[in-house]
Amino acid sequence: MTTTSTKPMIALETKEMADMLFAATQEVFVSMLGSEIHQLPEAEPERSALFDGVVSVIGLAGPVIGNGIFACSAGAACDLSSRFLIAEFSAVDEQVLDAVGEITNMIVGGFKNLLESITGQLQMSIPTVMYGKNITSRNSQADLAVVVRCAFAGGECELAVRLAAA
Amino acid sequence: MTTTSTKPMIALETKEMADMLFAATQEVFVSMLGSEIHQLPEAEPERSALFDGVVSVIGLAGPVIGNGIFACSAGAACDLSSRFLIAEFSAVDEQVLDAVGEITNMIVGGFKNLLESITGQLQMSIPTVMYGKNITSRNSQADLAVVVRCAFAGGECELAVRLAAA
Repeated sequence: MTTTSTKPMIALETKEMADMLFAATQEVFVSMLGSEIHQLPEAEPERSALFDGVVSVIGLAGPVIGNGIFACSAGAACDLSSRFLIAEFSAVDEQVLDAVGEITNMIVGGFKNLLESITGQLQMSIPTVMYGKNITSRNSQADLAVVVRCAFAGGECELAVRLAAA
Repeated sequence: MTTTSTKPMIALETKEMADMLFAATQEVFVSMLGSEIHQLPEAEPERSALFDGVVSVIGLAGPVIGNGIFACSAGAACDLSSRFLIAEFSAVDEQVLDAVGEITNMIVGGFKNLLESITGQLQMSIPTVMYGKNITSRNSQADLAVVVRCAFAGGECELAVRLAAA
């Protein structure tokens, strides 16, 4: 048996993946959160700046593996939770973290459905939501990474997807 | 077609899952990090206290879905990275975050191999590693959750696994 170091490539361009991610985000914001969104320029593929706020991560597995990450400020998380749960939230509590987890689940789920036309069937893991200060994050094993920054009525949010050959 | 609200149960006790997680952690610490570990009491199934340090998350998917989480202080992360990469680290940088991601990958991979005897074949996603202050975390969709706290020569670390029916 011989092995080679060449990984199978994912037949997907970064631009196409970013368009899918924006479309999935827009769908959830318009249909579930009652807000239009628009895309902001200058997304960085790897977050380098320190960040205060909420980060939600959900894994993807199948013919490709990876994850989807949703990040926003505490204020934006409260606004999104207020929209989603139709109740007033002014501080990040467990309900807000759960709401952000649910929103992440819907957005990454919509993205997964679009991606499956290219990759074949994928599964999502369960969301892990973290809230903290001075957060840096790293995803070292990705072959393909896109970040989409969006503005909505209550602030900004960032969606990232990283994929690697399984 | 009829549907019921009863989720299929995972045929696994919390104690059995904690034992698997400790065994997988011990294997990596002894074989890759040159340190014995021992288990600490009073693990909380859901982290409630604020936490400063490094948190690494990796998704699981297959007949069950879920994730594995590794958490430790900045000091413990530096000690582990020094052991793993055989180089001196005194501050959390990208190399330390990547090393913690690799260690998480090995521990959760070992746990996955043990769990597969019960669940059938599982896949792992790619690790996301975060470093920050005042971190709280939430996993809302889990049916089964275990946390194992361990002490090693360079500090303490915590392993958590959450599983849900796919």
